[in-house]
Amino acid sequence: MTFFTRLKRIFLGEPLSTQMAINELIPKWQALAVLSSDALSSVAYATEEILIPLAAFSALAVNWSIPIAVSIFSLLVILTVSYRQTIDAYPNGGGAYIVSKNNLGIQAGLIAGASLLIDYVLTVAVSTAAGVENLVSAFPILMNHKEILGTGIIFLIMLLNLRGVKESASIFTIPTYLFIFSFVLLIGIGLWKLAVGEAVPLAKGVVQEYPVIPFFLILRAFSSGCSALTGIEAISNGIPLFKSPAQTNAKITLTWMSFILGSLFLGITLLAHFYGVVPREGETSVSQLAHLVLGQGWIYYLVQGSTALILILAANTSYVDFPRLSSLLAKDRFLPRQLASLGDRLVFSNGILGLSLSAILLIVLFKGETHHLIPLYAVGVFLSFTLSQVGMVVHHLREKEARWATALGINLIGALTTCGVLIVIAVTKFLMGAWMVVLLIPLLVLLFNRIHLHYKTVGKELSLVGQSPFVKLEPIQHTVVVPVSSIHRGVIDALRYALSISQDVRACYVEIDSARTAHIQTEWQKWAHEIPFVVLRSPYRSVIAPLLKYLDDVEQTTHRDMITVIIPEFVPSKWRHQVLHNQTAFLIRTALLFKKGKVVTSVRYHLHDT
Amino acid sequence: MTFFTRLKRIFLGEPLSTQMAINELIPKWQALAVLSSDALSSVAYATEEILIPLAAFSALAVNWSIPIAVSIFSLLVILTVSYRQTIDAYPNGGGAYIVSKNNLGIQAGLIAGASLLIDYVLTVAVSTAAGVENLVSAFPILMNHKEILGTGIIFLIMLLNLRGVKESASIFTIPTYLFIFSFVLLIGIGLWKLAVGEAVPLAKGVVQEYPVIPFFLILRAFSSGCSALTGIEAISNGIPLFKSPAQTNAKITLTWMSFILGSLFLGITLLAHFYGVVPREGETSVSQLAHLVLGQGWIYYLVQGSTALILILAANTSYVDFPRLSSLLAKDRFLPRQLASLGDRLVFSNGILGLSLSAILLIVLFKGETHHLIPLYAVGVFLSFTLSQVGMVVHHLREKEARWATALGINLIGALTTCGVLIVIAVTKFLMGAWMVVLLIPLLVLLFNRIHLHYKTVGKELSLVGQSPFVKLEPIQHTVVVPVSSIHRGVIDALRYALSISQDVRACYVEIDSARTAHIQTEWQKWAHEIPFVVLRSPYRSVIAPLLKYLDDVEQTTHRDMITVIIPEFVPSKWRHQVLHNQTAFLIRTALLFKKGKVVTSVRYHLHDT
Repeated sequence: MTFFTRLKRIFLGEPLSTQMAINELIPKWQALAVLSSDALSSVAYATEEILIPLAAFSALAVNWSIPIAVSIFSLLVILTVSYRQTIDAYPNGGGAYIVSKNNLGIQAGLIAGASLLIDYVLTVAVSTAAGVENLVSAFPILMNHKEILGTGIIFLIMLLNLRGVKESASIFTIPTYLFIFSFVLLIGIGLWKLAVGEAVPLAKGVVQEYPVIPFFLILRAFSSGCSALTGIEAISNGIPLFKSPAQTNAKITLTWMSFILGSLFLGITLLAHFYGVVPREGETSVSQLAHLVLGQGWIYYLVQGSTALILILAANTSYVDFPRLSSLLAKDRFLPRQLASLGDRLVFSNGILGLSLSAILLIVLFKGETHHLIPLYAVGVFLSFTLSQVGMVVHHLREKEARWATALGINLIGALTTCGVLIVIAVTKFLMGAWMVVLLIPLLVLLFNRIHLHYKTVGKELSLVGQSPFVKLEPIQHTVVVPVSSIHRGVIDALRYALSISQDVRACYVEIDSARTAHIQTEWQKWAHEIPFVVLRSPYRSVIAPLLKYLDDVEQTTHRDMITVIIPEFVPSKWRHQVLHNQTAFLIRTALLFKKGKVVTSVRYHLHDT
Repeated sequence: MTFFTRLKRIFLGEPLSTQMAINELIPKWQALAVLSSDALSSVAYATEEILIPLAAFSALAVNWSIPIAVSIFSLLVILTVSYRQTIDAYPNGGGAYIVSKNNLGIQAGLIAGASLLIDYVLTVAVSTAAGVENLVSAFPILMNHKEILGTGIIFLIMLLNLRGVKESASIFTIPTYLFIFSFVLLIGIGLWKLAVGEAVPLAKGVVQEYPVIPFFLILRAFSSGCSALTGIEAISNGIPLFKSPAQTNAKITLTWMSFILGSLFLGITLLAHFYGVVPREGETSVSQLAHLVLGQGWIYYLVQGSTALILILAANTSYVDFPRLSSLLAKDRFLPRQLASLGDRLVFSNGILGLSLSAILLIVLFKGETHHLIPLYAVGVFLSFTLSQVGMVVHHLREKEARWATALGINLIGALTTCGVLIVIAVTKFLMGAWMVVLLIPLLVLLFNRIHLHYKTVGKELSLVGQSPFVKLEPIQHTVVVPVSSIHRGVIDALRYALSISQDVRACYVEIDSARTAHIQTEWQKWAHEIPFVVLRSPYRSVIAPLLKYLDDVEQTTHRDMITVIIPEFVPSKWRHQVLHNQTAFLIRTALLFKKGKVVTSVRYHLHDT
C-alpha cells in the first residue's frame, strides 16, 4: 500500500461497498429506528418552543399550549396520510427534489433542493444545540460552555464522517428505542402520579382557562411548535431499505412513527402543562419535567442521556442526506460534476467540511440557543413539504392511477395545509430570522442555474456533434524546453524523458550569478552536449520572467503546435522536506497556468535520503 | 499581458530592477535618513523604559535615570567607535552574520543569524506598539483599541510590502528629519523654559539625591534603556549605498547618527527628570513631556505625529532586512534554496506573511504594550553585537592590517562591553520574557543545521561525480495512458498529444454507470478507433482505485521504464469556474504523487465560454 493510500485509509477509512450507507434490507422495527431519529428527537424541544412565546406574554397564556399541540397533532395526521400517497407513487423514494422536479418542473425542484440543503445544515445546528442544552441541564457545571460543547460535538461528528462510519442499523436501534422507552416511562410515571394525586403541589393549582391573547401570538407559538414535524419525510425517502413488500412496509412504519411521535409530543406537552413547567434559562423544559416527575435519580439521567444521544444521531442523519441530495443535483448538472459520484469519499470531504463549518458558525452566532435557531429551521422544511405535496397533486392529475381522486383529495388537503403553515411561519418568524432563509433560497437557486448554464455552454463548446470523424488522429508537433539550474541526476532523467517525447529538445538556464555560467556550460558539454543549451540573462534577477520570454521566442520561431516544458522535480522521502524543494517548479507551473499552447510536465526524482 | 501577470502586477507591483530597494548612490544626509529610522526611533521609548522599573520602586528612585542614561550614552560611544572598525574592514557591508561566519565559524554565524531574524520580528512588533502608544496618547479616544490599531498598521505595512513599495530615499528623508526637528524643538523649548524659570511648578521641586536602591534594579533599568541602541548597526550594513568614498562617508554618517541619537536620548531623559515625568498607563512619557513643555498646541501634535511616523518607518526596515538576511542564509543552504534569489518577489511573500503574522501575534499576546515586549528585544540585539565584535577581534588578530593593534583594542573593549551588557540583560530580563529568545535561538540554529544537512545529503545523492559521461543520452521507453470520462474536443486534443509522445497509447474508462458504457464505446469507434480503449469496472464506484490498479497492470505487463498518464483538463475563462472542473484530474494527480515511474501530464483545453 502506498503512502498516500495508507494516509487515506487512516483518515477516511476503508471504501464503502455501495452508495447507500446501509445496504442490507431491514425489517420494519429496525427501519423505524434508522429513519426516525430526526423526527422523534424534535419531541425534545418542540414543547418548549411552544411555551416560550406564550410564557413571555403572561403566566396564564401558557394554557394555550394544549390546543396548539392538538392542532400540530392534526397537522401530523394530515402529513402522514399525504406521505403515504408519496410512498405509493414513488417506490424508489420520493424526496421533495424528485417529486417537485418531475411534476412541477426543474425550477420548483431546485427550490425544494435549496430548501433541503439549508435544512440539513439547520438540522445539524438545531439538534446539536438541543442535545447540548439537555446535557447542560443534567450537568449545570457545563453551563457556560454551550458553544464549545456544540462545536466539539459537530467536530466529532465531522471527523467520524470524514473517517467514514461503517453504519449499520444496530447503531441506530439501541439509542432510538432507548429514547422511546425512557420517554414512555417519563410520561407514564408522570400521568400515574397525577392520577394518584402524588404530583407536586404546583400541578394542583392549574387553572384551565384560556385568557384572551393576540392571535398573532398563538400563530407564533404554533409556528415554533411545528418544529416537531421536521424529519417525518425521511421514511418516504428511504423505501429501498425496506424488506418486500417495501411500499406496504414503509407505509406501516410511517404510521407507527407518526403515532409514536404524536403520542410523545402530546404527552410531554400535557405533562408540562399539568406540572406547571415554564421555560427558563439554563434548564430545558424536558429536564424540568423529568426532575419534577422523577426527582434526581437514575431514570432522570436516563431520560436526559437518551435525549442527548438521539439528538446527536439526528444531527448525523444530515451527513447522509446532504451528500445524497448533492449527488442528485450534481447528476443533473446543478452542482459541481464531481459530487455526482459517491464512490471516492474524498470528493465529499469538502461537502462534509462545509456542512460542519456552517453548522458550527450557526451555533456560535446564535450562542448555542436552540430557541434562536428554530425560526430559521421551519421555513425550509415547510417549503419542501408544500412543493412535495403540490407535486403529488399534479402527479395525480397527470397519471390518474387507481383511486386517484381520493389520493388527489388527500394531497390537496396536505398541500393547502402545509402551504398555510408555511405562510404562517414565514410571517410570524420573518423578523426573528426566517428572512435569512427566504433570502438564501433564491440565491441558491440562482447559483444552481448559473452552474447549469456553465456546464451547458462548455458541453456545446466541447461537442464533436457536426464534425466529421477523422480518418486518423494526427499527432501534434511540439518543442520541448527543459529549464535547469544545475546538472544532476534529476536533470539527466528529465532530459532522457524529453528526448523520448520529441525530436526538438532544448535546455535553458537562467543566469542569476554570472560567475557560475562558465562552470555549468563546461558541465553541460560533459554530460549533455547533444542538447542545445541556452543561457538566459536576468537583469531583474527573476527566474520566471526570462523563462517566459524565452518560451515566447521559441513559440514564434518554431511555429510548432505546442511547447512542452519539462521540469525536474524532487520527491523527498520525508513529507516535511517538501518545502525545501520544487518552489521554482511551482512558480513556473503557476506562471504557465493560463497560457495557451503550453504543456507543463514534471519528471520526478525520488530521493531516498534518510 | 496574461491574466496571471496582471494579477501579480496588481497585487505585487512592477518588478524592482535590482536586489537593493534603493539603487542609486546617495549623499550622506540622505543616507542618514534611510539608515537611521530604526535607531533614532528608539528615543521614543527608551527613556520611559528606564523610568518604569525605577518608578515602580519609589518616587525618588527615578533620579537614578540620569546616571543610567549617561552610562548608556557611553555604551553608544563605544559601539560607534567599534562599528567604525567594521566599516573599515568590510567595505561591502559587514552584518553580524557575515562577520561572525567569516571569523568565528559557521555556527557562530548561525547564532548571529538566528538572533537577527528574531530581532527583525521584534523590531516590527516593538516599533508598531510604540507608534500606536504615541498615537493613543495624542488621541485618547483610541485607548481601548491598541491591539486593533497595531494589527491594522502591521497589516498595512504587509500589504505595501507584498505589493512592493518602490522605495526611494525621499520617502525616508522627510519623516526622519521631521522627527529630528520636532525633538530638537521639544528639547530646546523645554530647556529654555527651565532656564527662564517658566517651567511648570513640578520641575522646581526636584530633589537631586540618589537614594539607596537594589543594584539589581539599577541593572534592570539599564537593560531596558539599552533598547535605545537597537538599530545602530544599520549603517555598517549599508555601505554600498554611499557615494564614494563610501567607507569614509559611512563612518562620518555613523558618527553623526550616534551624536543625534545620543543627544536626543540624553535630552529627553534629562527633561523628563526635570519636568518630573513619571510613567503612567495611557500616555507615553514623550507625550507627557510634550504636553508639559508645549501644552496642547500644534507643536505637540507635530511631536506625536512625527514620532508615530518614524516608528512605523522603523518597523518597515525589517521588511528589507529580513529578506536580505534570509537570502544570505539560503545561499549558504541554511534556509530553503528558493529564498536565495531576491528576483521573484513572489518567493518572499511567505516570508513577508510570516514576519507580519509573528509580529501581530506578539502584539496580541503582549496586548500592544511596548514595555512588555522590550525584555525580548534586547537579548537578540546584544547577542549579535557581541558576536560581531568578537568576530572583529579575531579578524584583527588574523589579518593584521595597518594599525591593527589600536583597532583590536577598540573592538576588544566593544566585545567585552557588549558581552557584559548581554549577560546583564539576559539575567535581569530572563523571567520577564528573555527566556523565550534564549530558547528560540538554539532551536533556530538547530533548524538551520538540519536544513543544511538535508541539502548536503540530497546533493550527494544527485551528484554525477564519479560517473563516466554517457556517450549519448538514451531516451526512455514509456507507455501513455489517457483516462477519459467521455469523448469531447478536450479528449481529442489529449489523444493527439499522447500519439505524438509515444508509440504505445491506451485510453481507459472507469465504468460507474453501466448504462453509458455501450454509448461511449460506439463513440470511441467513431472518433478514436486507432487507440485501444479499456473499460475498467468499479465495484466500489471509485474512479481512482480502478485506475491505479490498471496502471499497475500496465506496468507489470509492458516492462517499460515509465508510464505517462495524460489527463485532459479545462482552463475556464473565468477563474471562479475552476471549481466546476478538473477535480478528477486533481484526485489522479494526488494519488500518483508518491508513485515511482509515473509522469502525470495535463493537456489543457482553454474554454472561451462567456
